Amino acid sequence: MGEIMAERAVTIRDVAKKAGVAVSTASRALGNGPASLETRQKVREVAQELNFVPNQAARQLTSGRSNIIAIAVPERTQFLFNDAFVSGMISHLADSFTQKTFLPFLALTGPHDTESLNKLLHDSGADGAVVLSFHYSKGLVDTLAQFDKPTIFIGQPPHHMNYPYVDVDSFHGGYEAAELLVQRGRRRIAIIAGPDDMLSPQQRTSGCVEGLAAAGLEPIAINVGDFTSAHGYQAMKEILADDPQVDAVFAHSDQIAAGAMQALSQYGKRVPQDLSIVGFDDFHVARALSPGLTTFAQPLADLAETATEMLAWRLRHGEWKTTAQVLPVTLILRGSL
Amino acid sequence: MGEIMAERAVTIRDVAKKAGVAVSTASRALGNGPASLETRQKVREVAQELNFVPNQAARQLTSGRSNIIAIAVPERTQFLFNDAFVSGMISHLADSFTQKTFLPFLALTGPHDTESLNKLLHDSGADGAVVLSFHYSKGLVDTLAQFDKPTIFIGQPPHHMNYPYVDVDSFHGGYEAAELLVQRGRRRIAIIAGPDDMLSPQQRTSGCVEGLAAAGLEPIAINVGDFTSAHGYQAMKEILADDPQVDAVFAHSDQIAAGAMQALSQYGKRVPQDLSIVGFDDFHVARALSPGLTTFAQPLADLAETATEMLAWRLRHGEWKTTAQVLPVTLILRGSL
Repeated sequence: MGEIMAERAVTIRDVAKKAGVAVSTASRALGNGPASLETRQKVREVAQELNFVPNQAARQLTSGRSNIIAIAVPERTQFLFNDAFVSGMISHLADSFTQKTFLPFLALTGPHDTESLNKLLHDSGADGAVVLSFHYSKGLVDTLAQFDKPTIFIGQPPHHMNYPYVDVDSFHGGYEAAELLVQRGRRRIAIIAGPDDMLSPQQRTSGCVEGLAAAGLEPIAINVGDFTSAHGYQAMKEILADDPQVDAVFAHSDQIAAGAMQALSQYGKRVPQDLSIVGFDDFHVARALSPGLTTFAQPLADLAETATEMLAWRLRHGEWKTTAQVLPVTLILRGSL
Repeated sequence: MGEIMAERAVTIRDVAKKAGVAVSTASRALGNGPASLETRQKVREVAQELNFVPNQAARQLTSGRSNIIAIAVPERTQFLFNDAFVSGMISHLADSFTQKTFLPFLALTGPHDTESLNKLLHDSGADGAVVLSFHYSKGLVDTLAQFDKPTIFIGQPPHHMNYPYVDVDSFHGGYEAAELLVQRGRRRIAIIAGPDDMLSPQQRTSGCVEGLAAAGLEPIAINVGDFTSAHGYQAMKEILADDPQVDAVFAHSDQIAAGAMQALSQYGKRVPQDLSIVGFDDFHVARALSPGLTTFAQPLADLAETATEMLAWRLRHGEWKTTAQVLPVTLILRGSL
């Protein structure tokens, strides 16, 4: 096993043996636990003699820095790998943090066991954390509040949670989607929205609603769910049932748009002849759809780099240089408009 | 920010302030660094008075246990999320370790920077590690050897690396594939293999070669590459160019099989009329292909649970109960045979 293959470093066990005390005693004597002054002196002498380098736990205690960054994504593990936004963000965050010689890890403690996340954040000695795909829950809010290290969000957290964040300009994306659809001559416009326990879907909807209002219109439907194609499919069927004359959809994600297009095709509706669709993300699926999906590209690599720089600055200087950065989305025109 | 939102715990800063010393001095006095006896006593009195709970680094030093488990997958981050075996294993490992109240995380230090992986393993205070998708490299071997905590592999490591592992019975999968294809009347059988710096592809090939030998046959080609459909596509084209009469393929992964079937379709070859194909994995793609792929199902959840139980036993009892467990694969018959 690993333990016996390495050219061994001196361990606490060696120190304990040579000092003639139990390992636990040696550990207490070197660390922060109760031990007699005599024992403490003896163990420290031996440690010096053996050139014992105390383990990282001890070193951290002195330096106060580990360079470890925890990435917390309170979603089911399976979702982390299937969702293009989440997996893409984790991947870019891994790259940008390692480039700055941080040591990033992805917490895998599960979405509901906030006590375990709490322990992992503390016990790993992480210097800071990045929180991604945050849905509001009290347990999670408390856990993050208890973590007394700098923490940054990808995606603006709820207003009462005063964390620094990076985000994309969801509001203006929504606004621009409305303008585009109105210019295209569409009047009966539905919104298929992401989760309402997150801020960015709320902003995408608000932007679209205001953009429509500027043209004297209101959305004919706002259908809230998750970011999946299953939601898009189901919502589109409901919207068609309520109003067969619907002529446009603003979908909060490419996956939602993909599901909506599947439903439309089953109902014999043609895109873009009968309906226009605008998505959000510009992930792989947007190019794979037929027709290609007009959508707003999220700058994942820029989001990751920006978050990394903000957190690195905070760790180096003890204060945030900036507490929020909002990056523009980029309109990608394809056949679905 | 998190720091100001929580009902704050007493920190080292509070102790330092009240003791009238610098934070670094207080840290040294409580920990393992140089400090005068007087300072040490003063700081410890204050710490006791304020009911200061030293941070986890200090606690770990005493208890020696963190319950943190590092999952190390030395692959590009993007690959982690795109590969069905790797992402599935991480997901199941996350589930099985959290069920046993461990705190699992996924190391994101990148495949080549073994020094960072080294630091992360040590500095996070991980009690143990799981290594997955191991390709042989000296840097990685050294890093793992330096990590002096129990470590288990998913997938047997190279023979000279004496680590406990769980694996599937790749040899017998390969052997059974050969038997099936021979029973089906196939004689010109090619192997499209996974990476040769991993043991399980070697075993799948050996099994298939021995199974063919039992019928007096040899593979007409063994084409080595990675587990991707791109490799399967390219390899199939080369095999067809060398021997248009090839009548069967044993593919080391479903993805390889998918790529091979794409190439066959371009060459006007019909599956299973002209060629039989057997894959390995039984992931989603195996069902999605047309015809469905005959393949060997890997028991991902069982692998994860077995690895978790082995490591948990080792951590509890100080020794391995068993150092290797090999689980059978299950033949899934579909149209491609």
